[in-house]
Amino acid sequence: MTVRVGVIGTGMIGQEHIRRITQVLSGGAVVAVTDVDAARAAQVASGLPGVTVHATGRDLIGDADVDAVLVTSWGATHEEHVLAAIEAGKPVFCEKPLATTEQACLRIIEAEMAGGRRLVQVGFMRRYDAGYRGLKKALDSGQIGAPLLMHCAHRNPAAPPYGFTTDLIICDSAVHEIDLVRWLFGEDIVAAGVLRPRRTSRAGADLDDPLVVLLEMASGVLIDVEVFVNAGYGYDIRGEIVGEQGTVALGDGEGPIVTRDGRRAGQVPADWRERFGAAFDTEFQEWLTAVGAGTTGGPSAWDGYAAAVATDACLQALRSGQRTPVAVPGRPDFYAKAQ
Amino acid sequence: MTVRVGVIGTGMIGQEHIRRITQVLSGGAVVAVTDVDAARAAQVASGLPGVTVHATGRDLIGDADVDAVLVTSWGATHEEHVLAAIEAGKPVFCEKPLATTEQACLRIIEAEMAGGRRLVQVGFMRRYDAGYRGLKKALDSGQIGAPLLMHCAHRNPAAPPYGFTTDLIICDSAVHEIDLVRWLFGEDIVAAGVLRPRRTSRAGADLDDPLVVLLEMASGVLIDVEVFVNAGYGYDIRGEIVGEQGTVALGDGEGPIVTRDGRRAGQVPADWRERFGAAFDTEFQEWLTAVGAGTTGGPSAWDGYAAAVATDACLQALRSGQRTPVAVPGRPDFYAKAQ
Amino acid sequence: MTVRVGVIGTGMIGQEHIRRITQVLSGGAVVAVTDVDAARAAQVASGLPGVTVHATGRDLIGDADVDAVLVTSWGATHEEHVLAAIEAGKPVFCEKPLATTEQACLRIIEAEMAGGRRLVQVGFMRRYDAGYRGLKKALDSGQIGAPLLMHCAHRNPAAPPYGFTTDLIICDSAVHEIDLVRWLFGEDIVAAGVLRPRRTSRAGADLDDPLVVLLEMASGVLIDVEVFVNAGYGYDIRGEIVGEQGTVALGDGEGPIVTRDGRRAGQVPADWRERFGAAFDTEFQEWLTAVGAGTTGGPSAWDGYAAAVATDACLQALRSGQRTPVAVPGRPDFYAKAQ
Amino acid sequence: MTVRVGVIGTGMIGQEHIRRITQVLSGGAVVAVTDVDAARAAQVASGLPGVTVHATGRDLIGDADVDAVLVTSWGATHEEHVLAAIEAGKPVFCEKPLATTEQACLRIIEAEMAGGRRLVQVGFMRRYDAGYRGLKKALDSGQIGAPLLMHCAHRNPAAPPYGFTTDLIICDSAVHEIDLVRWLFGEDIVAAGVLRPRRTSRAGADLDDPLVVLLEMASGVLIDVEVFVNAGYGYDIRGEIVGEQGTVALGDGEGPIVTRDGRRAGQVPADWRERFGAAFDTEFQEWLTAVGAGTTGGPSAWDGYAAAVATDACLQALRSGQRTPVAVPGRPDFYAKAQ
Repeated sequence: MTVRVGVIGTGMIGQEHIRRITQVLSGGAVVAVTDVDAARAAQVASGLPGVTVHATGRDLIGDADVDAVLVTSWGATHEEHVLAAIEAGKPVFCEKPLATTEQACLRIIEAEMAGGRRLVQVGFMRRYDAGYRGLKKALDSGQIGAPLLMHCAHRNPAAPPYGFTTDLIICDSAVHEIDLVRWLFGEDIVAAGVLRPRRTSRAGADLDDPLVVLLEMASGVLIDVEVFVNAGYGYDIRGEIVGEQGTVALGDGEGPIVTRDGRRAGQVPADWRERFGAAFDTEFQEWLTAVGAGTTGGPSAWDGYAAAVATDACLQALRSGQRTPVAVPGRPDFYAKAQ
Repeated sequence: MTVRVGVIGTGMIGQEHIRRITQVLSGGAVVAVTDVDAARAAQVASGLPGVTVHATGRDLIGDADVDAVLVTSWGATHEEHVLAAIEAGKPVFCEKPLATTEQACLRIIEAEMAGGRRLVQVGFMRRYDAGYRGLKKALDSGQIGAPLLMHCAHRNPAAPPYGFTTDLIICDSAVHEIDLVRWLFGEDIVAAGVLRPRRTSRAGADLDDPLVVLLEMASGVLIDVEVFVNAGYGYDIRGEIVGEQGTVALGDGEGPIVTRDGRRAGQVPADWRERFGAAFDTEFQEWLTAVGAGTTGGPSAWDGYAAAVATDACLQALRSGQRTPVAVPGRPDFYAKAQ
Repeated sequence: MTVRVGVIGTGMIGQEHIRRITQVLSGGAVVAVTDVDAARAAQVASGLPGVTVHATGRDLIGDADVDAVLVTSWGATHEEHVLAAIEAGKPVFCEKPLATTEQACLRIIEAEMAGGRRLVQVGFMRRYDAGYRGLKKALDSGQIGAPLLMHCAHRNPAAPPYGFTTDLIICDSAVHEIDLVRWLFGEDIVAAGVLRPRRTSRAGADLDDPLVVLLEMASGVLIDVEVFVNAGYGYDIRGEIVGEQGTVALGDGEGPIVTRDGRRAGQVPADWRERFGAAFDTEFQEWLTAVGAGTTGGPSAWDGYAAAVATDACLQALRSGQRTPVAVPGRPDFYAKAQ
Repeated sequence: MTVRVGVIGTGMIGQEHIRRITQVLSGGAVVAVTDVDAARAAQVASGLPGVTVHATGRDLIGDADVDAVLVTSWGATHEEHVLAAIEAGKPVFCEKPLATTEQACLRIIEAEMAGGRRLVQVGFMRRYDAGYRGLKKALDSGQIGAPLLMHCAHRNPAAPPYGFTTDLIICDSAVHEIDLVRWLFGEDIVAAGVLRPRRTSRAGADLDDPLVVLLEMASGVLIDVEVFVNAGYGYDIRGEIVGEQGTVALGDGEGPIVTRDGRRAGQVPADWRERFGAAFDTEFQEWLTAVGAGTTGGPSAWDGYAAAVATDACLQALRSGQRTPVAVPGRPDFYAKAQ
């Protein structure tokens, strides 16, 4: 069965996912699109034979030819579209964040639980990255013993030229690690803190870049995350878990080793596409396959909510300079099956 | 347009490619199969709705619903099927070897040229591996200057338990490097030699394992290839090109780094699937895309022929213990466009 | 000229340095020893022809045949011996810590300054390690731009079976990084904090192991130091400085790479001797050479004092759970020449 | 006891060893020098208080104050000085080659055996390198099973501007690996061959650079050595032994890893001093210690002879293009104790 997907939001990331479904993956087809910018939606559709352009997300969700919904619109509109998809009983893949407030996340969770089955998957794609999967596999195998702490670095070559604020370093960048550590360690974050190292002169005057985000898990595992969005030299994602018996770290990656001029050098990915392209493919393929089989797996609305709560605590810590507790209520049985 | 593919040969590798076309890649569909073992063909087809089972390769090629042919049957039957596909004017992807003799390769080339357009692609998948593509890109960029020599290692954990002969170390294993160096350096092999190191005690009594194959390119570039099919510890593919200004080597690969018990260790792939799975995907996706667009790229029948000639020279060198010239005639303009 | 050295304290570390001077390095000779345990001093001397055993440190320092003094006695006695050596006008090499209180450090500094010339060198040997010297050289070259933060890990296989307290994790282990970052960045520490990750079950009940020590430099550079004294798998020292243009990290070390059983593994040193043995040699050779030339370089009494102040702040932070300011007064010109 | 050393030949390498004995190592002192260029000998001596300058090697060897002799003169004079030292019953450390012909080596061996005790050590310093010692230790531990083949690369940044011939690539460069493999595998070389890859344009017209030297051990282990004396990018020494169970390779070395501009790079040593300086120190220290104890260990005259025989075979192979047998007679019991 081919899953007929409707896409809400045809900006950069929406187009990227349309390309993936259409040209890379098997099992899916894009049959409908919509965008707040109707002209853009029409233009994207023009390259896709047989695709319907809808005026609104609600119309698209109501289209009988749409089996499943992909939400890649602006974050503030996520709640509306996800709730509408739940109401229509259609599986929905929502790019992060699930919604922009904790309350909105909770409304989605209530709606989904009221409906009685998992329909929502949130776009936390690192769970699909081969590197992190290897990390989790090694951790779960017991090779390094009980985990005690983890060091992460999350470096981008440069932040977007304007509009990127210190809060976004947390909400847009660190949120990946916020979800990641919940998945890696299988437990919730209980406190957060933020440290401010010396600022890089390459950032705009209003950006505290880099930051160090501190996350404490329920078991006491402590995570430090260097988030540096103007690191300049490339896109560099690192992680090392320290356990009682040893450590496990992401590998240094791929690509050829060039030796010349007294240096032996490997490569750092140029951007997130190069580093995580295959993870996006895996994420989507698994979603399509699950949807085709009538199920939903992957990061849930609950995961989206938990990330929102922890992100808020980081923002508070950023402002207060204090360690800030993170209180996520007990997970409903409905969401018990983690990916 | 979806390319409707007919598959001749539904053994292990045929099934693997069917899975890839059906479940991994977009743009293709398997519509017909055949196998010398009719029961196996029927069983494979039973899992694929709407697939026709043909009695012979010729019938399958003649099926009007088949746009393109995939030959994954026993090597000795390749010539027959490829010639039939050319005769029918249908694109054909033929797993290596193109054919089992030089004369057979030449007959395919003559037929293809007589037809006036490229239809044949040979399954030399290393050209699609991200690692080797990075190697070639670094070489072509001039970073290491003119190439002078290359060191390769080609290690399998274990040879098949029986039936694997010393000749196969060359025809089945080293043939990958034989094609690879023609593509990497863009020139032909002019001589071959084979050295016999100490034999491993883990091989059967009739297997000279490992071997070192020496290949000399037209420009004088010298390649040594350690081929070791019972290396035991994993599947390990290495390559380093030495140039006038520096060297470029395949990276050490991916996967987590585990540190414990006084060791910091990365992983070696367990088998060729893990190491080259993505290359197979790329190879097939590009073929499907090209076929969909009415063209044929990738390793040509001429490349298959050139590999056959060089392989024969290696076998001669293995027997005589002498350096053996390799004489490939000038490439016809028809095949001028290399991938 | 051979430097005639008197050694105060002939325990493990004292014997190690005696061996180095006697058997490894040129330019020095041990001529006198003393120890609070007179029998031990006599026994050590019995293996060294022509060595005088003194009853007290004061006697040894007063011995006209002693050109220079090496203090490797218990920390609480350092002040007394160093002051006596200063009084005698003799160069003195004092193992860390310089003294056990800030006040004692200041008394040493005052005495040395009153004497008008540098006589004291403190045993911060990491400044002599080839790895750290490479780090500093790369930093100073400007290759990575202005430094912003630094990640360190300091892992021992196991803490001594008893007597090792949480305070010692800071005073005995982290003190190395405390001195190191002052030297690397050429500026003082202005604040300290300590975080407590999940405790390892391999430590005794009274040991908070591992810790994360946070150090803030005057320029805002932030350093996080994982100190883990029961890491189990080996002795592992890591460091990465993150700058505006890139990062520089300690290499993964030496030793052969063994590939077998699906793993490609390098080695982690078994202990500090293996990792830093050559640094100790360099440290001593440079001291002997300086002494032979009538000068004193290396980490000064001032450096010993600054480390004591920062260490105290860490201990306060450990107890209070709060970021604690570190206030080192301006460095006297007398100590202006850093190594 | 301090070993009083007389040095014959005060050129670059002689001065380097004098510095090491005088300034780096304990247990030795230079007391006499001589050189065919008397002015140079006098100038070197002027920096060394109490050193006697002798007119000839014979005079120096006869000096009653000389306990041991270091021969660092021109290769053609080695035989004369080593024989004279043997005649005088004095330990002699002779830089490679032991002598310039097989017959000369044999005369030295006969003289030494006639004298009844080991006096000669040849300067094959790779046996003292921590990297190679780690390789040998891993091999001898059985971790990789029986050795089958070995890949070596021996790359210099640039050959001396003139006077460096193709023969010297073998006699001066490859000779290190020729001795090394005898020591690593504990057996003799039985055949040699030389291959000529494409020539680098950076070499003079009369230099066939790089070469690949093939060495076959008695057990069948096959070694390929890329010798490239104008590799340009640095001094790069590599080695990987392939065994039945796995492989062991030299590590990538030390120094900081710098990440910037999309590259993560380690360093290649600039020259042999940086790479093998510590090995020279170890070599000399062990020699001094052995001499002080009245014994002689290390590479023997027999090892120097065996290297000469294998080197000659390589030269023959270079000229004939053919595999050339290497015939070293059975080792006399006198030389049975290998290092």
